[in-house]
Amino acid sequence: MSQGFRGVLVPVVTPVRGDLTIDGQRFAGICRGLLDEGADGLAVFGTTSEANSLPARARMAALEHLVASGIDPARLMPGIGACALGEAAELLAHAGHLGCGGGLLLPPFYYKGVSDEGLYRFVAGTIDTARAPAPVYLYHIPPVAQVGYGLELIGRLVAAFPDVVVGLKDSSGDFDNTRAIITGFPGFDVFCGSEVFLLDALRIGGAGCITATGNVNAAGIRKVFLGWRGEKADALQARASEIRHTIQQFPMIPALKAIIARRQGDDGWKTVLPPLTALDNETESRLFAAIDGIGFV
Amino acid sequence: MSQGFRGVLVPVVTPVRGDLTIDGQRFAGICRGLLDEGADGLAVFGTTSEANSLPARARMAALEHLVASGIDPARLMPGIGACALGEAAELLAHAGHLGCGGGLLLPPFYYKGVSDEGLYRFVAGTIDTARAPAPVYLYHIPPVAQVGYGLELIGRLVAAFPDVVVGLKDSSGDFDNTRAIITGFPGFDVFCGSEVFLLDALRIGGAGCITATGNVNAAGIRKVFLGWRGEKADALQARASEIRHTIQQFPMIPALKAIIARRQGDDGWKTVLPPLTALDNETESRLFAAIDGIGFV
Repeated sequence: MSQGFRGVLVPVVTPVRGDLTIDGQRFAGICRGLLDEGADGLAVFGTTSEANSLPARARMAALEHLVASGIDPARLMPGIGACALGEAAELLAHAGHLGCGGGLLLPPFYYKGVSDEGLYRFVAGTIDTARAPAPVYLYHIPPVAQVGYGLELIGRLVAAFPDVVVGLKDSSGDFDNTRAIITGFPGFDVFCGSEVFLLDALRIGGAGCITATGNVNAAGIRKVFLGWRGEKADALQARASEIRHTIQQFPMIPALKAIIARRQGDDGWKTVLPPLTALDNETESRLFAAIDGIGFV
Repeated sequence: MSQGFRGVLVPVVTPVRGDLTIDGQRFAGICRGLLDEGADGLAVFGTTSEANSLPARARMAALEHLVASGIDPARLMPGIGACALGEAAELLAHAGHLGCGGGLLLPPFYYKGVSDEGLYRFVAGTIDTARAPAPVYLYHIPPVAQVGYGLELIGRLVAAFPDVVVGLKDSSGDFDNTRAIITGFPGFDVFCGSEVFLLDALRIGGAGCITATGNVNAAGIRKVFLGWRGEKADALQARASEIRHTIQQFPMIPALKAIIARRQGDDGWKTVLPPLTALDNETESRLFAAIDGIGFV
C-alpha cells in the first residue's frame, strides 16, 4: 500500500531551444515555479512534456539537472516509457538511482493488439531488469498509446509486484474505467488524467490527478484537492473544469506553451518538437481571447 | 532518380538470447543465408525485426557487427525510425556512416492525428541533422504506426530532398494507395509491404517488395520478381501468395521464428521480445500442419 504521491501532479511542458535540445535553465525554473504554486508533484517527461519526442539520454540528463538544481527528487515522477524493454528498464533504474518518488510507465506502444501476457512480461521484465527501481505508476492513455492496461492486467501486476507497482494514471477519458480501478484495488493510488474528474475521483478514494492544464492552473486545480470535503467543492471543480474545457478546444501542448510564453513575456517558450507544431498567430489569438473571456490569464 | 534497391528485400527477424540481447552470430548467419538464397537486400530492423522493442544503441551495435561480419552494407536498408527526431537522425547518420544502401524511416508514431506540416518538419529535421545521411526510404505502415505518409506529404519531401528521399515501403495493405504513389512519382522507388501485391506493383513500375515472409520464402518470392514478364508470372505469384496467406493466419513474427527454428533445429530462434509472445505448442502445431498442407516446409 503506497504512501506516495497525493494531490495535483503536473506533467511539466519541456522548454526546448531552437536546436530542439532541452533548455535546462528554463526547465528548472518552471519546475520550481510549479512547486511554489502548490503542485504536489511533477510528472516530468509525460505526454504533455513531449517526452517521446526526446532521446532517452536527453531526458535522463535533464532529470539529473533538475535534481542538481535543488528540486526534491521525491516530488518527481518522470515518464519512463519506451517501446524497448531495455530502455524502459534503464529509465526506471535511473529514476530509482536519483531517488525519484516514482516513474510513470507507458505500455510499449508500437505493436497494436498485443496480448495481456506480452504486456505483463514487458512490465515484469522492466522491473526485474531495473533491479532497484523507483516505485512504478502505470500510465494508461489508450487515446494516444492505443495499447493500454486493462483491469485484469493491473490486478496481475499489483499481485506480482505489490511493493513496486503502486499506482496508475488513467488518461482514458472514461471515468467509469477510473472508478473501476479505484474501487477494484484499494490502496492502489489512482490519478485521473484530467482535473475534470478530480472531485469525482477524490470522493471514491482516488489519489488525485496528473493533468496537462496543471502547467497553467496548478493553484486552481489544487483548490479542488484541498477543499473537496468542503461546501465550495463543486464550485471549485466547476471553475477548474471551465478553464480546462476552454483550453482543450486548442491543441493542448502548443496552447500551454503559448500561455506560458505570454505570461513570462518569453517567446522562446513557444518552441515545440516535431511532429507537433506551434500555434499559428490566428489560433493563438483565439486561444488568448477564449481564456481572457473566462477571466483566466 | 534512384538506382538503388530493386527486387525482394527481407525485414530480417532478429535472433535474441534469453536475456533479450541480440545474438550477433545467429543474426549474421541468417543474413548471409538470405542473401545466398537470392534476397536483393536486407531491411533489417523493421517491424518484423522487432526493432522498436530494442534500444537504438543495441540496433546500431548489431548493424556494425553485420558489416564487420562481411555483409555488404550496400545491401542493407536498416530501419531508422524513432519517435524522437534526435534519435532518428542518429540512426540515419549511423547508417550513412556505415555505407548502407538506405534507411527505412517510420514517421514518429507516439502522437496521433499530427499534421503533415509536423511530419514534414520531423523528416526534414532528421535529414538535416544527420548531415551525411544514407538514402531515405519512407516507411508507410498505418495499421501499426497509425501515423502515415500521405501523397501530398510524399510529394513535398521528394521535392525538397530529391537526392535523399528516394523511395517508400507501402505497408498500408491498400494497393490503390501503392498504385497512386508509383504512378504519381516516376523514378521514386516504391516497394509493397507484402508479396501478394508484387506482380501488380512490378507491372506498373514498382521497385519490388519488402516482406516479412521473405524470411522463409525469399527464393519463391524472388521467382515472381525475376519472371514477372514471363508466361509463368501469374502462377508464380499465386504460389507466393498462397504461402503468404497461409502463414499470415498466425501471429506473423513468432510464426516466422517458429518456422526458422524448425528448419534449423534450433529452438533458440523462437524467443521474441515483449510485448510479443512466442506461439504456444498448439498454435505452433497448427502452423506447421498448415504449411505442410500446402507443401511448404
